[in-house]
Amino acid sequence: VFLLTDYGNSDEFAGVLRAVVVRDAPGATVSDLTHGVPPFDVRAGALALERSALHLGPGVVVAVVDPDVGGDRRAVAVEVRGWRGPRHLVGPDNGLLPWAVDALGGVRRAVELDTALAGASTFDGRDRFAPAAARLWAGAPLDGLGPAVDHETLVRLPFPVTVVAPGRVTTEVVWIDRFGNVQLAAGAPHAEQAGISSEATLELAGRRTPLRRVDAFTDIGDDEIGLVVDANRRLALCARRGAAATTIGARVGDVAVLSP
Amino acid sequence: VFLLTDYGNSDEFAGVLRAVVVRDAPGATVSDLTHGVPPFDVRAGALALERSALHLGPGVVVAVVDPDVGGDRRAVAVEVRGWRGPRHLVGPDNGLLPWAVDALGGVRRAVELDTALAGASTFDGRDRFAPAAARLWAGAPLDGLGPAVDHETLVRLPFPVTVVAPGRVTTEVVWIDRFGNVQLAAGAPHAEQAGISSEATLELAGRRTPLRRVDAFTDIGDDEIGLVVDANRRLALCARRGAAATTIGARVGDVAVLSP
Amino acid sequence: VFLLTDYGNSDEFAGVLRAVVVRDAPGATVSDLTHGVPPFDVRAGALALERSALHLGPGVVVAVVDPDVGGDRRAVAVEVRGWRGPRHLVGPDNGLLPWAVDALGGVRRAVELDTALAGASTFDGRDRFAPAAARLWAGAPLDGLGPAVDHETLVRLPFPVTVVAPGRVTTEVVWIDRFGNVQLAAGAPHAEQAGISSEATLELAGRRTPLRRVDAFTDIGDDEIGLVVDANRRLALCARRGAAATTIGARVGDVAVLSP
Repeated sequence: VFLLTDYGNSDEFAGVLRAVVVRDAPGATVSDLTHGVPPFDVRAGALALERSALHLGPGVVVAVVDPDVGGDRRAVAVEVRGWRGPRHLVGPDNGLLPWAVDALGGVRRAVELDTALAGASTFDGRDRFAPAAARLWAGAPLDGLGPAVDHETLVRLPFPVTVVAPGRVTTEVVWIDRFGNVQLAAGAPHAEQAGISSEATLELAGRRTPLRRVDAFTDIGDDEIGLVVDANRRLALCARRGAAATTIGARVGDVAVLSP
Repeated sequence: VFLLTDYGNSDEFAGVLRAVVVRDAPGATVSDLTHGVPPFDVRAGALALERSALHLGPGVVVAVVDPDVGGDRRAVAVEVRGWRGPRHLVGPDNGLLPWAVDALGGVRRAVELDTALAGASTFDGRDRFAPAAARLWAGAPLDGLGPAVDHETLVRLPFPVTVVAPGRVTTEVVWIDRFGNVQLAAGAPHAEQAGISSEATLELAGRRTPLRRVDAFTDIGDDEIGLVVDANRRLALCARRGAAATTIGARVGDVAVLSP
Repeated sequence: VFLLTDYGNSDEFAGVLRAVVVRDAPGATVSDLTHGVPPFDVRAGALALERSALHLGPGVVVAVVDPDVGGDRRAVAVEVRGWRGPRHLVGPDNGLLPWAVDALGGVRRAVELDTALAGASTFDGRDRFAPAAARLWAGAPLDGLGPAVDHETLVRLPFPVTVVAPGRVTTEVVWIDRFGNVQLAAGAPHAEQAGISSEATLELAGRRTPLRRVDAFTDIGDDEIGLVVDANRRLALCARRGAAATTIGARVGDVAVLSP
């Protein structure tokens, strides 16, 4: 059972989630993906889950970034089509799950969790999602958890936009990691289409920065920003043992324009 | 084996605790409740452990918030009366355990850990508490760990005070979570006794704030502070996708007065 | 399988590492030592791993603090001579492993991980180190992972310097923990050699501070800095329920001079 939330590690929220899974599914291996998603940031959670999805083994994912807990957003469990990796994902129907579901082969079936499972209305991770995941882990049939949901109706977030024009990629900063690497929505094919090979110019937040396309962090000079194809096959702006995000003043959501 | 400490996640303290449990109790599932209790804050740890206790399955709890490690405070292991959840709790005798023990049915027996188990005098989590917990997990009898303790002599912290008068609940801020929700010591019955139903006024830190009683975060308006019965059945002051603690300037330990 | 990295807990890096181990070695217990090593700080990681090593049970260690990932530093797996604790350690050949390897009895054999295992060049934890550790955990022979390495050629960091003269120990701040305790490279024998028993004077960062040698935190007065032999048998500067590092203005790498 894999867990991804915005609960943080300071409070006991994530610990209670782990404990409920262990209590309801004795023998399950509980594996934290992260609890460090910024509070209420569904999109950041959806991206982190998508980046993780292809590296997971079999199991059930519980994902909770859920600003509308207790409201009328649905709580759902989704079965994916893929043959590898997790078979089920459980969480709020607010866009958190679909990108990871897509990466895992798309929806096979989905159900809305019966509200009868609910306790308090502020901690569905503990009271609804973790117990449902434990049941799925133990082999319970998906349709025992609640009524079927037309998967065309699952809420989807707008995907980050990347536009390629000759000599120009317009894209978006989607993630700044702990090391200050700046991940863009665009991938290597976008750069190629725009004719960006060795040198490039970045426009971001009103500043122009020269970039050099490199294969590894070690190829980046000390006062230089490198353009790397990162471990998720996206373009990233990186510094040598430093935080590129600070150097170029990037924040998540900023528009980035790359030109040769 | 459940772990709750103020060790943080930056150093390897919590990791060594986990490793010692796994080493001494191969096959045990180690489940972190949290290591984010503020340093030396026994009360915060006791409250977090109490909030968690009812959601845990069978096992042993190791709790360490222990400013007096190496001094003459006792190290104890407690067996609880309850039929569900953890059967044993291990930690310093400084008030950290009793509220959780109460939640789990009260003390059946308690022992003082033999100091003969001790190594260095600064890391009892590693050298005394985790090994004792591993032995209990593996089925060792409680009285093999040390001499019996009269459980009336276990150190107890003063419980947060809530006073209800007609039209007035005087209580205390006991927890501010990662989302900025402000938990009070008072519960829903206190509010009812004082005649607080839909609207209320909060006095805290010299400021007055209007409150509206709501069932869920989604019922709170954008510029409003809601009064919620939270997942621990306590009253909490909450904002919509924001930090109520910042808005109202609340800190743990502040006195809060609610009136209709 | 034990994990130690500088990945932090905010991103999903550590979670993906855990998931890859679980995927490739079903049944393995994954135990985080810490992911809070300061970014790129190989030395801090090497010290944390050395402090942990003697407390671990059998298994495989994956350690990743790897500023030169993707460059020509080697990726290695080391088998140790010791009979207790982990038998294998996997990580970059940049000085991160050897101190812990020494603590575990020294190198028996070492191999360089075949680059054929590599995927992307920025996340070797996921793509090379975790899969290699999973294979070792499952019983694969070390020499199946790549060509033998002469262990005299493994990169070693310069060890922190401690110089003892009559009436004077010159040493280095090697670690400041979450509680503000200041660990020095020197141990109790160095203090004894220099004739430091009950009272001492610290010179650090241009300031002189009186110290008192104590056995436990509880022996330290409220406005006093204590000199303690800590849980790793090193000398440490500690305050009573407070951060000694703040009081004396210490930072990692500072030179500390102790005299009676």
